[in-house]
Amino acid sequence: MNVQVVMVSLLTLGMATAVWAEDAAKAEPAKTEAAGDAAKTADAGTVKDEPIKPLEAVTVKDEAKVELGKKLYFDPRLSKSGFISCNSCHNLSMGGTDNLQTSIGDHWQQGPINAPTVLNSSMNVAQFWDGRAKDLKEQAGGPIANPGEMAFTHELALDVLKSIPQYQDEFKSAFNKDAIDIDMVKDAIAAFEDTLVTPDAKFDKWLKGDDSALSETELKGYKLFKESGCVACHNGPAVGGASFQKMGVVEPYKTDNPAEGVGGLTKKDEDRFKFKVPTLRNVELTYPYFHDGAAKTLEDAVHTMGQLQLGKKFTDEETADIVAFLKTLTGKQPEFQLPILPPSTNETPRPEPFNKADKDKAKQKDAGAKADGKQS
Amino acid sequence: MNVQVVMVSLLTLGMATAVWAEDAAKAEPAKTEAAGDAAKTADAGTVKDEPIKPLEAVTVKDEAKVELGKKLYFDPRLSKSGFISCNSCHNLSMGGTDNLQTSIGDHWQQGPINAPTVLNSSMNVAQFWDGRAKDLKEQAGGPIANPGEMAFTHELALDVLKSIPQYQDEFKSAFNKDAIDIDMVKDAIAAFEDTLVTPDAKFDKWLKGDDSALSETELKGYKLFKESGCVACHNGPAVGGASFQKMGVVEPYKTDNPAEGVGGLTKKDEDRFKFKVPTLRNVELTYPYFHDGAAKTLEDAVHTMGQLQLGKKFTDEETADIVAFLKTLTGKQPEFQLPILPPSTNETPRPEPFNKADKDKAKQKDAGAKADGKQS
Repeated sequence: MNVQVVMVSLLTLGMATAVWAEDAAKAEPAKTEAAGDAAKTADAGTVKDEPIKPLEAVTVKDEAKVELGKKLYFDPRLSKSGFISCNSCHNLSMGGTDNLQTSIGDHWQQGPINAPTVLNSSMNVAQFWDGRAKDLKEQAGGPIANPGEMAFTHELALDVLKSIPQYQDEFKSAFNKDAIDIDMVKDAIAAFEDTLVTPDAKFDKWLKGDDSALSETELKGYKLFKESGCVACHNGPAVGGASFQKMGVVEPYKTDNPAEGVGGLTKKDEDRFKFKVPTLRNVELTYPYFHDGAAKTLEDAVHTMGQLQLGKKFTDEETADIVAFLKTLTGKQPEFQLPILPPSTNETPRPEPFNKADKDKAKQKDAGAKADGKQS
Repeated sequence: MNVQVVMVSLLTLGMATAVWAEDAAKAEPAKTEAAGDAAKTADAGTVKDEPIKPLEAVTVKDEAKVELGKKLYFDPRLSKSGFISCNSCHNLSMGGTDNLQTSIGDHWQQGPINAPTVLNSSMNVAQFWDGRAKDLKEQAGGPIANPGEMAFTHELALDVLKSIPQYQDEFKSAFNKDAIDIDMVKDAIAAFEDTLVTPDAKFDKWLKGDDSALSETELKGYKLFKESGCVACHNGPAVGGASFQKMGVVEPYKTDNPAEGVGGLTKKDEDRFKFKVPTLRNVELTYPYFHDGAAKTLEDAVHTMGQLQLGKKFTDEETADIVAFLKTLTGKQPEFQLPILPPSTNETPRPEPFNKADKDKAKQKDAGAKADGKQS
């Protein structure tokens, strides 16, 4: 992975809030205004002037590509085992996450980091906790070829797709080309993910002028969230996702998890433990929390964030109020039919133990061992 | 598992075709007439008189129960890991199977047998390859508590469900009771599974009088399928599922798989290698084939069945014709929205490594080891 390239990619995104070098504690609320641009589709006449902006439903532009991407997202044949799909860890029945501390990968390997939600992820300044992919398209290829996740190769995944006539047809419809390459696979998956936006949360209704949408407690929680400085990082339509910040500003964060965030890419000391600020949209559904998944409950997460990032010790009542507010960010979950996948053909490579390449290799090895006079 | 009870249950089902003691080779086509009863919903005026009967769509009777069952079917929190749901191995995007030789279970354990399709499974004379569950309700509890599959216990699964208010409400709506027990869980899952019927296959259209629905090759394949004796076992609306037959009648079946079928339950020599005849509905989607998943392609399966069960060596052309016919049995797959699962609460037990009981046990063990003067 070429870190320089990623850095440049990130820095050329032109989003004023994507600032690795800033600390949350130093950030001014004024900074959050830039995020307001993304909410320009909302009716400016009625929307309240708040650092959090309403989330708007997306219009599907390219239905053929989105439908294809949905199938690929649910297709476990993009993994070596034939058992793990994108939806295994970014489960759209469960807030776009797996609700595990860290994910389960090929051969039950335990992942190094908590799976971030795919919901509203198109609004992130970059993808992965350390921002090493500049967008969803770049991200989509990662897990397929990660030996700890889907453990496949792009080439083998393409062999599977190319062997299936219905996929050939759908790629042709979506891309107007008689070929399938990994760029198209990533593009289609990203096009589907772009549609995974969750509008119409209670908080959106309140932002758009329905004062009765929030209870007294929820409103109290929001005011505290705003006045305590949480909005310095958690702002805009995604209530986060727009900047990288150090985990542990006022006090260091204690964890067994070895992830170093942006510092793991740049090798700069000032980037250590800088992670992308996660979106708080649907946070009620995306437990457990933090990059290490160590916070089991929203109460844990709010308490720790207050103390470590803002130097505030929220009382139990304050924490409860903020949690009540956070639950108003649960939006309308994406509604779609479970995709029916096109069947493999006789030409489709099968997952282990039907993988001929593996068998041939084993046979060769066996033959080699015999030729060497060793026991097989 | 009380084998006697299962045997009695099976024998009291009153289905004339559920006959463990008969051999496929001895069966007369006349025997298949009994299966016609199940097709009584079809219009008798137009339906062709064939051993295979049309498959009719089901009407959902209890929507609350079916919707609840759908959620449970997709909920990985019914597994110890929080990662495996019913849909993991009986994937409704993939013909109700996992398309693996044998399934992957908790901690990547390899299952002992090929996962049968859940599609049209309500028509099976009994559930599992060896028929050890009398119906879908009895089957549904099995995988949850099987240490090699979902590896949970019914009690722990109930603890999860009881801690989630939305599930409490949905169980109350479905069962009119202020409680959740495993009987209700199994009942709801079975109610959902009862809806997973796949009507409107090309072959159904042909059966109902549309002579143009089948091509010449497909029709030739069907005639050969019928005349060769395949219909002795593969008949009725599910094209199978109605009897237990010995695998390897004319020649013994060679396999590394240790499963003994019905004989594993009854310990009777005449029941060894007797397995439930699988449905051939959607067989295009449910590869690989046989209880050991050893037949990779439909061609393999047809060739082996002809030779071992009927003593016939189909030519390549004959095999291709039969395969063409078998593909006309692919029906309309169940269409429904991906269910959105109700989120866990702070009271919901978390999967490992958040399982307090496990941690406490580890701590106790550690303390015990220290008290014994051993190194921890």
